[in-house]
Amino acid sequence: MNTAMLLEHITQGDVLRQRRAIAKAITLLESTRADHRAQGDELLTALLPHTGRALRLGISGVPGVGKSTFIESLGVFLIEKGHRVAVLAVDPSSSVSGGSILGDKTRMERLAGLSDAYIRPSPSGGTLGGVAEKTREAMLVCEAAGYDVVLIETVGVGQSETAVSGMTDMFVLLQLPNAGDDLQAIKKGVMELADLVVINKADIDPHAATRARVQIQTALRLLGLQGNPQRMTYVAEGAGGAASTLARWQPRVMQLSGLQGQGLDAFWQAVTEFQATQTTNGALTERRQQQALAWMWERIDAGLKAAFRAHAQVRAALPDITQSVTQGHLPPSTAARRLLALTAEGQA
Amino acid sequence: MNTAMLLEHITQGDVLRQRRAIAKAITLLESTRADHRAQGDELLTALLPHTGRALRLGISGVPGVGKSTFIESLGVFLIEKGHRVAVLAVDPSSSVSGGSILGDKTRMERLAGLSDAYIRPSPSGGTLGGVAEKTREAMLVCEAAGYDVVLIETVGVGQSETAVSGMTDMFVLLQLPNAGDDLQAIKKGVMELADLVVINKADIDPHAATRARVQIQTALRLLGLQGNPQRMTYVAEGAGGAASTLARWQPRVMQLSGLQGQGLDAFWQAVTEFQATQTTNGALTERRQQQALAWMWERIDAGLKAAFRAHAQVRAALPDITQSVTQGHLPPSTAARRLLALTAEGQA
Repeated sequence: MNTAMLLEHITQGDVLRQRRAIAKAITLLESTRADHRAQGDELLTALLPHTGRALRLGISGVPGVGKSTFIESLGVFLIEKGHRVAVLAVDPSSSVSGGSILGDKTRMERLAGLSDAYIRPSPSGGTLGGVAEKTREAMLVCEAAGYDVVLIETVGVGQSETAVSGMTDMFVLLQLPNAGDDLQAIKKGVMELADLVVINKADIDPHAATRARVQIQTALRLLGLQGNPQRMTYVAEGAGGAASTLARWQPRVMQLSGLQGQGLDAFWQAVTEFQATQTTNGALTERRQQQALAWMWERIDAGLKAAFRAHAQVRAALPDITQSVTQGHLPPSTAARRLLALTAEGQA
Repeated sequence: MNTAMLLEHITQGDVLRQRRAIAKAITLLESTRADHRAQGDELLTALLPHTGRALRLGISGVPGVGKSTFIESLGVFLIEKGHRVAVLAVDPSSSVSGGSILGDKTRMERLAGLSDAYIRPSPSGGTLGGVAEKTREAMLVCEAAGYDVVLIETVGVGQSETAVSGMTDMFVLLQLPNAGDDLQAIKKGVMELADLVVINKADIDPHAATRARVQIQTALRLLGLQGNPQRMTYVAEGAGGAASTLARWQPRVMQLSGLQGQGLDAFWQAVTEFQATQTTNGALTERRQQQALAWMWERIDAGLKAAFRAHAQVRAALPDITQSVTQGHLPPSTAARRLLALTAEGQA
């Protein structure tokens, strides 16, 4: 199928034709063949004017926190409200484990059965940067197909949360009502990324959930991630109507039960307020522009690294130089200069 | 002065001649002139066989925690025990602030007056990678001059703690007896780097210091950075005599007062145990080899980035491409491929 036809089917096809075109486009974009890559670039560029209208929501949390159940409940809830929901994933471990998240669509049976839902597991293989790139491009395809809410799930593997935060408008962190869970999130820098912290499974032990909420609120304040409550109220009010352009979103903490479907209304209300605040103050547009540039530079730097490591003369010289460095005969900085000098660009 | 003479003065000169040669060598290594750089590489390679015998100690902590006072007390203490002590710093903000740490030697008057102490402020200017590189090379010069303890101070600016941890054998984190201080350290990932956490200023409020110590111990356990107490005891005993090759160092927490000089004995005892454990189990050698290779690759990647950004055709094309990306006309991944194709190496 040529690019023009793919584009037409994605943006205007009936549901079945559209699904097939989306799958075909994503497969094309995931291909490493040079001619596919060229056609993929052409398609992406053609799709771009049709993208950007969806709300992009990143959802993270340790295994067992109930991400799939939450996403399924949320997806069904949103589709009942008239939305079209795409669910994607970034799981750099999926090549090893065979896909720990979204690998098995049956885990979201109810959602997968709806015609307004599109679910795709994490691309497998390669570096986190490569996996993230494929998911970013799949997101653009889904947006062009008219999905207006894109949920991107991730597990706490390596820097995957940072990658997902870097491609979404809002980053939601699911937490269990456990002590220590929040310390892990702080340690990994995930708390810093969160626009909203959700204590899930609040139905099991409401007291523990409330304790966890207070703990995390204290932690957010101590970390300087959250202003004082007055300021938060102000922002919440501002988003409702007479918003000041200075109003900045303050990360919030809330509790819900994904399994019982309790709290989804309040959750979506918070997401809507976030969107209103960030649209009014311009942060949404700015965040997307910064993400686009960061993405470009990330791909450039990854490309430079890969090209250097694949360079014939570098590969030939590397074993001896590496050995000299580990044995302490050659200073690392001298070794770096020597290797860089082997490539045309490194000499600049 | 030629390389051979510099080498001779550094490794065999009397104190005054040695000091002058060290200063000259470091100035040479910090120069960006191509001929200096070539001579610097020659000197570093010649110095290398004389390096590696010092204990390299990284010392970090937020401003106000009392790093300078602690380092001065420790330095004087060690020189009285017969050591020769070099004090270096990594402060990537020093080009802006004029040097927030070690910029003013008078802050360490007592130590600076001793002939067995060598103090050098942070190199200024450039990226963290560049600043770290200069400090690493200065460390090698000091080691070749026979300083057997190298203390490298850093403040919590950007990733400077990671850089210092990446050039030292042991990383010490100074903490105030304050709630929240430890959360900041966890947030920044510094707690993870620490081989030893020291609650400083314990003399001011011993109860708060004890509370902080317990809190941090709990945090280390919850973060999975510390085993159970039995295992710690085992390691501590093992280091004293019949050490198992499997014994791994477990991060510890202790309190002291740098100002009063209280606890320095216990501190140095812990450092000595660390050194014994890590020497016996091979971790010290392994850490240094990994650091050398990581240093080499860090410099290579920095060199690739710099060369790419300085490339004439890239510079010419960048403004238009950047604009297309931020305006949403060009997908970031396509933009990256287009820019990479402009350089000879990027095409590989």
